[in-house]
Amino acid sequence: MANAFYGQSGGVTAVINATAAGIIETARQHPTVFDKVYAGRDGILGALHENLVDISEESVDTLEQLLHTPGGAFGSCRHKLQNPNVNHDEYQRIIEVFRAHDIRYFFYNGGGDSQDTTRKLAHVAELMGYDLTCIGVPKTIDNDLPATDNSPGFGSVAKYVAVSALEASFDIASMHKTSTKVFVMEVMGRRSGWIAAAAGLACDERELGPDVILVPEISFDKEAFLERVKQTVAKKGFCVVITAEGIRQATGELLASADNEDPFGHTQFGGVAPLLVDFIKERFNYKCHWSVCDYLQRAARHLASQTDVEQSYAVGKAAVEYAVAGLQSVMPAIVRTQSVPYQWDIKPVHISEVASGEKNMPRHFMSKDGFSVTQAGLDYFAPLIFGEAYPPYRNGLPEYRKCRNRLIPRKLPEYFGRKDGAKETEPA
Amino acid sequence: MANAFYGQSGGVTAVINATAAGIIETARQHPTVFDKVYAGRDGILGALHENLVDISEESVDTLEQLLHTPGGAFGSCRHKLQNPNVNHDEYQRIIEVFRAHDIRYFFYNGGGDSQDTTRKLAHVAELMGYDLTCIGVPKTIDNDLPATDNSPGFGSVAKYVAVSALEASFDIASMHKTSTKVFVMEVMGRRSGWIAAAAGLACDERELGPDVILVPEISFDKEAFLERVKQTVAKKGFCVVITAEGIRQATGELLASADNEDPFGHTQFGGVAPLLVDFIKERFNYKCHWSVCDYLQRAARHLASQTDVEQSYAVGKAAVEYAVAGLQSVMPAIVRTQSVPYQWDIKPVHISEVASGEKNMPRHFMSKDGFSVTQAGLDYFAPLIFGEAYPPYRNGLPEYRKCRNRLIPRKLPEYFGRKDGAKETEPA
Repeated sequence: MANAFYGQSGGVTAVINATAAGIIETARQHPTVFDKVYAGRDGILGALHENLVDISEESVDTLEQLLHTPGGAFGSCRHKLQNPNVNHDEYQRIIEVFRAHDIRYFFYNGGGDSQDTTRKLAHVAELMGYDLTCIGVPKTIDNDLPATDNSPGFGSVAKYVAVSALEASFDIASMHKTSTKVFVMEVMGRRSGWIAAAAGLACDERELGPDVILVPEISFDKEAFLERVKQTVAKKGFCVVITAEGIRQATGELLASADNEDPFGHTQFGGVAPLLVDFIKERFNYKCHWSVCDYLQRAARHLASQTDVEQSYAVGKAAVEYAVAGLQSVMPAIVRTQSVPYQWDIKPVHISEVASGEKNMPRHFMSKDGFSVTQAGLDYFAPLIFGEAYPPYRNGLPEYRKCRNRLIPRKLPEYFGRKDGAKETEPA
Repeated sequence: MANAFYGQSGGVTAVINATAAGIIETARQHPTVFDKVYAGRDGILGALHENLVDISEESVDTLEQLLHTPGGAFGSCRHKLQNPNVNHDEYQRIIEVFRAHDIRYFFYNGGGDSQDTTRKLAHVAELMGYDLTCIGVPKTIDNDLPATDNSPGFGSVAKYVAVSALEASFDIASMHKTSTKVFVMEVMGRRSGWIAAAAGLACDERELGPDVILVPEISFDKEAFLERVKQTVAKKGFCVVITAEGIRQATGELLASADNEDPFGHTQFGGVAPLLVDFIKERFNYKCHWSVCDYLQRAARHLASQTDVEQSYAVGKAAVEYAVAGLQSVMPAIVRTQSVPYQWDIKPVHISEVASGEKNMPRHFMSKDGFSVTQAGLDYFAPLIFGEAYPPYRNGLPEYRKCRNRLIPRKLPEYFGRKDGAKETEPA
């Protein structure tokens, strides 16, 4: 019997805590294997600095509340460990902390970089002769993890974006005669258009919208875009544009980003939505409105996909079961066994398969002209937003749980090896 | 027995169609008074151009769907009729159209300007000796209508903003250690801070946020703002800022607006959220994120307040009952009869009371330093977001109804009196 470590890493999601609940509840079902489950405060920083929270003692009530609380309950971080081939101080420190607390299971819940960390930690532990079962647990709203059909966290963002696009389309459809002609909604996605393309789910035979979807995978062609907007306004009176934040020029350069610096290090004023609106106003003088969803889209637990919640829980559960079964350096991946009706399963994949790259959206998910989502794309996205998983409400607001996160007593001297959070290493 | 006209005016809301349902269903209960109910296509433009939709024949099913469909089902418009003292051509034309279709009841669903239109139309009809019962029906997300405790449409925006602020706060609380320190969320409100202040409902003893709320009624003081942000980050590690789009400098000038032109007529690039982020980055170099909610907030029927839906229906119902009772030039107003537990009623007020001005948010709803909402403010806002009124979903998306809006045959020659939608006259 030994202890386990669970860490949340990278940008949080509306459902990452459902994964935490899956891990904690499943570990409890194996009392001969797991003694305590410790969460790292602020992810891997908690391991480095021996900031550990005993989450195995949490009440059943708290675990239920985790299922419907957005954000990372124990804190997440954007801290990339140094390459152990260059300097493995950080990895060694983590192993020391784990040894001090008899932690023999490592569950790391994040995107591609986090899977890579898990892989490296397993390697260093082996070199040090420390017996540590390392299991990666998938999570990213970006949906760019290889080896899994989709990523936990993505389905809820997809649902938020599709519902918001639909609602905004209803709004503009009723106002365009004398008011706004074009609405531009900016969503996340620096390197891939999974999120923006999911807005295509709001399109149907009623032709309400969205009308134009822009993704980073397809170079932005200003003239073609403006022509498409003009044609759409001429045809139906208004045009709804969904753009990924990371759309790029033919040169590969970002058009703009709400969280970007220009090549000279100056902060840029505004995201890509207002830039597109500027293009449209300059050319056509249409009245335009725009929105930037930013964190609202990934925190929107009030509109989570039931499918996403179930899958998020399932990968947590499977991660623990894999550890119990003696698997090493694997990650539970989601397998789509059937599209209609949607059926899925969980299987283990080696984390080296996941850590190795990003999964781009297939080109054939977008139409030839690059402005709309094909049936193949819609078939892929559709089941990921199925079902509503409403949180309980009190006095009109969701009852989200803020964990107390009391740290257990430290056993080691303070760690000064590397300055905390010195630099971001993952996309924000 | 005669016919009725119903028009939707100005910026639409998530719940204005609930008012339409209230009007149609109540008119049906008085078959000896009302023959048909016609909706104006695109609001008052439908009356001017004889674009009328017979909505009294809509199925029970459609009426039920209107209860949960955002936007204006029959189209709205931003068209201010000319002052009848200067030129009453438009008013006369409307009366001609009404006479041709035996329309003797006028229900106009909008904000302050719309109530003013109703008042003027009643006046012109009287001068022309045309018997027309004119009833104003309240609607505005801005909550600035006088003589009513709150405005239908506001409660749902308030709920959206409070829930979104809460969710974003959970997100940042879990990331701030190594990532974003400040999040700025821009909401609507050009002249008043009702919407921004409603985000204060997300504050509680857990101190998650929002931490700073900026409203147009209180001059923006850059230094005081930056100091407050700095103190908040120092104290809790992060800071969540909610800003109304219309915050102003001490001179009264707008700081910025996502839908504004500078004094030289150039479009401005970006809203006020990215501008505030620019201030913060420049001074402290904190990592910041920002969002602009724009139409998403007022179209978000998926997160409507049950209280708001009920009140929106109730003002439609009352409007028809007032007409049946022979009242003239009144508007159903919402009266708060008790705060805890919340109780409300509907009473008629003369539209001249409503058309005459804007209701600003009381200064004592905001703290002395101007950055947070007082208990008096929270007590006012709290009941308006009570209850969830979820739309039905199919395949993960809300089932919103798009009306066919088939026009009835015209009886008059085409109208060329004034160019359609020449100019906006209400805030967008």
